[in-house]
Amino acid sequence: MPEPPTRWNYEHITPSLIMASELVGVVYAGETQYQRVEIIDTVPFGRCLILDGRTQSSEADEFVYHEALVQPALTSLAQPRSVFIAGGGEGATLREALSHKTVERVVMVDLDREVVELCQEHLPNHHQGAFQDPRLTLIHEDAGRYLKEDTARYDLIIIDIPDPLEGGPAYLLYTDEFYDVTRQRLNEGGLLVVQSGPCGPLNHQEVFTAIHHTLGAVFPNLAPYRVHVPSFGTLWGFIIAGSGPFPITTTAEEIDKRIAERVTRPLRFYDGATHSGLFSMPKYIREALAAEERVITRDNPLYAA
Amino acid sequence: MPEPPTRWNYEHITPSLIMASELVGVVYAGETQYQRVEIIDTVPFGRCLILDGRTQSSEADEFVYHEALVQPALTSLAQPRSVFIAGGGEGATLREALSHKTVERVVMVDLDREVVELCQEHLPNHHQGAFQDPRLTLIHEDAGRYLKEDTARYDLIIIDIPDPLEGGPAYLLYTDEFYDVTRQRLNEGGLLVVQSGPCGPLNHQEVFTAIHHTLGAVFPNLAPYRVHVPSFGTLWGFIIAGSGPFPITTTAEEIDKRIAERVTRPLRFYDGATHSGLFSMPKYIREALAAEERVITRDNPLYAA
Amino acid sequence: MPEPPTRWNYEHITPSLIMASELVGVVYAGETQYQRVEIIDTVPFGRCLILDGRTQSSEADEFVYHEALVQPALTSLAQPRSVFIAGGGEGATLREALSHKTVERVVMVDLDREVVELCQEHLPNHHQGAFQDPRLTLIHEDAGRYLKEDTARYDLIIIDIPDPLEGGPAYLLYTDEFYDVTRQRLNEGGLLVVQSGPCGPLNHQEVFTAIHHTLGAVFPNLAPYRVHVPSFGTLWGFIIAGSGPFPITTTAEEIDKRIAERVTRPLRFYDGATHSGLFSMPKYIREALAAEERVITRDNPLYAA
Amino acid sequence: MPEPPTRWNYEHITPSLIMASELVGVVYAGETQYQRVEIIDTVPFGRCLILDGRTQSSEADEFVYHEALVQPALTSLAQPRSVFIAGGGEGATLREALSHKTVERVVMVDLDREVVELCQEHLPNHHQGAFQDPRLTLIHEDAGRYLKEDTARYDLIIIDIPDPLEGGPAYLLYTDEFYDVTRQRLNEGGLLVVQSGPCGPLNHQEVFTAIHHTLGAVFPNLAPYRVHVPSFGTLWGFIIAGSGPFPITTTAEEIDKRIAERVTRPLRFYDGATHSGLFSMPKYIREALAAEERVITRDNPLYAA
Repeated sequence: MPEPPTRWNYEHITPSLIMASELVGVVYAGETQYQRVEIIDTVPFGRCLILDGRTQSSEADEFVYHEALVQPALTSLAQPRSVFIAGGGEGATLREALSHKTVERVVMVDLDREVVELCQEHLPNHHQGAFQDPRLTLIHEDAGRYLKEDTARYDLIIIDIPDPLEGGPAYLLYTDEFYDVTRQRLNEGGLLVVQSGPCGPLNHQEVFTAIHHTLGAVFPNLAPYRVHVPSFGTLWGFIIAGSGPFPITTTAEEIDKRIAERVTRPLRFYDGATHSGLFSMPKYIREALAAEERVITRDNPLYAA
Repeated sequence: MPEPPTRWNYEHITPSLIMASELVGVVYAGETQYQRVEIIDTVPFGRCLILDGRTQSSEADEFVYHEALVQPALTSLAQPRSVFIAGGGEGATLREALSHKTVERVVMVDLDREVVELCQEHLPNHHQGAFQDPRLTLIHEDAGRYLKEDTARYDLIIIDIPDPLEGGPAYLLYTDEFYDVTRQRLNEGGLLVVQSGPCGPLNHQEVFTAIHHTLGAVFPNLAPYRVHVPSFGTLWGFIIAGSGPFPITTTAEEIDKRIAERVTRPLRFYDGATHSGLFSMPKYIREALAAEERVITRDNPLYAA
Repeated sequence: MPEPPTRWNYEHITPSLIMASELVGVVYAGETQYQRVEIIDTVPFGRCLILDGRTQSSEADEFVYHEALVQPALTSLAQPRSVFIAGGGEGATLREALSHKTVERVVMVDLDREVVELCQEHLPNHHQGAFQDPRLTLIHEDAGRYLKEDTARYDLIIIDIPDPLEGGPAYLLYTDEFYDVTRQRLNEGGLLVVQSGPCGPLNHQEVFTAIHHTLGAVFPNLAPYRVHVPSFGTLWGFIIAGSGPFPITTTAEEIDKRIAERVTRPLRFYDGATHSGLFSMPKYIREALAAEERVITRDNPLYAA
Repeated sequence: MPEPPTRWNYEHITPSLIMASELVGVVYAGETQYQRVEIIDTVPFGRCLILDGRTQSSEADEFVYHEALVQPALTSLAQPRSVFIAGGGEGATLREALSHKTVERVVMVDLDREVVELCQEHLPNHHQGAFQDPRLTLIHEDAGRYLKEDTARYDLIIIDIPDPLEGGPAYLLYTDEFYDVTRQRLNEGGLLVVQSGPCGPLNHQEVFTAIHHTLGAVFPNLAPYRVHVPSFGTLWGFIIAGSGPFPITTTAEEIDKRIAERVTRPLRFYDGATHSGLFSMPKYIREALAAEERVITRDNPLYAA
């Protein structure tokens, strides 16, 4: 056994569970107008973006998170042309959205200009130059207000914002009011996908099941799924919502065909075989989804632990 | 924010990654003839069994691990009558094996009598009385030697032993020699299932892919799968191996029918829908499995990190 | 390097400084009417008593703390007959007070009966049977109220209570009002000694200098001193206060003579040579004591960090 | 309670005792030819120099360590003109040596040029420009060899080197052979002072008592003392050794007079009153010093834990 490491980054997965990563150095630590920002280098996960004390993504496993967030819904669409991203400051969600050559236009609205600029400077392996793509319109304001006021419609809307922390910038974007606005901004057959919080055996009822139930009050069809993201210390949930005939019935062969035809960068996590098992949730999750009764509203918001 | 907890149990997932759980108390800490044993109570995971510094199972999520280890293979068998368990000291693998009323006989061979006795005394929520079942034959010797010398055959052989640690009691049970012995002890159409180590994005090449490749040198058909076990701090891999027409093609409906007919205790993780997605591995795992070339042998053993 | 330990007890010395001790086991953890109580076994310090998250004393170094608290003042008194102890639940302050055979009577008033009973049961190496001494009168009520109402006088009053935590049971016993009461309960030439909080280079201005200044508003003569208590993670301060000609001028020879004549148990920390250097405080402490202006009152209490 | 800090620097005081400091950033981390070097910024201690995993000094409390190391011996000398420093890479021992205007010449021999250059660049609050003083001769070679070969004599020799770690650069400078060389390099009445390792209730027998006994085999007069250095997590020992009539008998008044006359920078820890109590060691230390029988030799070296 070598000498144990001496510098550690702690993250509370829950109040009684810590994940500690060997720390190489602190690239940036500061406060923006909206949140606390830390960019650190760690041994197990490489460079990490941390907002308000929570890891948003790490160099080592962001491919799992970002492909899982974007590719299933985007590939399910027969001919996606326009994408809206709420949040996504690292630029990696953008990178995935732009990876389909059918996509002609991405509008990304991230409230926090300073975070986006820090990511552009310090997270090159995350965005991989996506911010330079001419198809991008980048706007810094509240995504909820933007979507309410701007009536453009999209084939895919991606919600990639931090967890709903009390006093944080994001909690209103987890309400039925906001989901209803997104529904009005979808083209016919369009899809919404929402990063939906921790989804392991011990924490899927924190916010995941409630987001699912809230989306179900707005959209007729839902497809929940989850992947393990090691730097989050837990499984992570996502939910695709839509109004039309539902795309997760797309076959593995069709998925592979679409990837071959229109995806311009190699994928590491996602393909037809991945897709075909992705939406099978184990019994205890399905039971918890069925039992959930909370609807998250502006007057009755929900905060992550 | 309340006062942070003051007592923690540390577990190194890797040398540069620690999972720390709030500790309630130390139920037992000692050394047997074979290994270091700790039984502790924690806030996030309840009662945990730790062997040689590694969590073997926890009260909170052992249902995921043990159902995932036993139920897919056992339910896939049309009429399983006899089960062999190597290891499984907690008695929870035994509990799952006995849950099918078709099972007439379980032979469990765990080297470490003292561990089994400690589990019987201190882990009642794990074994739930399974050690009292008259169908059980419990033997304390090396499972490799037992299977070599005793020529009885089984419908299902379950390998539920600790990771292959250097100098530990288990590493010879991860070799092609041992897998070949298990093959000879299977009835026609019988299955072997092996707990196969960590299987997350960052650690699936530690032992999982090598175990898979080694099993592939002995068995014509393999079905790798994985589940997230929070108390292990990572996804965990399993591999079913067999010689006959392969059972993972069983439909969800057939799985649910068999559970209804013959499983005598409620399952929380496993059912037909769980089964149908369980064996879809993401692209990067399939690529790593395909690229693996290591075969684990007695002369060329493999040790977990 | 052997495998690093896996179980740790954390104690925040300050919000940004933690001392972590290898934990053997949890002997007791609970809440009394007044405070949170933990009795744990650790590798570096043996058995420890922790109240409201702060180590009160440990088996390994309580001899330093308790001899330092009691012996300098008690030995300085030419013929001490009566001792009052506020707090001191472990019984070790009592043990030291009883160690002088001149002492005929000790009144110990500790608010928390449950803590005292837990210490009697679980800390035998602390009290060493002192609770059985017929010279002891043990009372469970607020020491402040007791001293106000009972007009008995003492040769030595020892304040051995937890730090003044907000909402804790002790903060009123750190005020000028209480010190004034103690002054009225001292025989002529009698002494008060107060455990006075952390006293290292970085934390002597938390409470130590303020307690000193507050005592100085009541007593004409003060003798501050400090010792290092490893299990506290810092130097610890004490202050002797009195009205008469001051006893710390006693020579080393006289101290050794008195110990030889009247102390009935072997001392490990204290003797004449220890005494002679004990009251020399370094320059930065003397300057901080001289600069302090806070007086702690009921209306303007002071809380430990 | 605010959110707990997330980045920590761990230092093992012993294998079972950790001190963790909130980490602000990593200024430098690397390996020289001789040792591992880390310079970090922490909340409790400011900027710290760490060699081979052990804190050498911190911005917050280096005044205690460096004044304690240099001033008692230097001030005890009636007219010190020449000083030799073995080690002392931070430049703070140098700063203290140069603070007496009687000093005409300091020879500082530190093996590790790279460490000294890193300190010059990154520890300005430690050296405070001392490296620019024209009285300094700075040499990078082994101090033991230098003193053996160069026959110049000094009024004060200061040994300020890392603990004797196995395989580290310093262990031979803790032997009777080396101490004998230093004795030969002292002017008549000259003094040697040695940083002598941890000296708390639980660790004074690691190396402190053995260094004392070894020095006693070479020098007729010894004056051990100790101070608490919070960033070391323990009391720290020093020993002054000499051949002539012993200077620790100097009165407080004489010390203060000498400081007033010849020390050109303000002292924070040391003055006459500090000096007068500094050498009073408590009973258990004196007993351990008396009982020690180890002599550290080249053939029988001693390593810190």
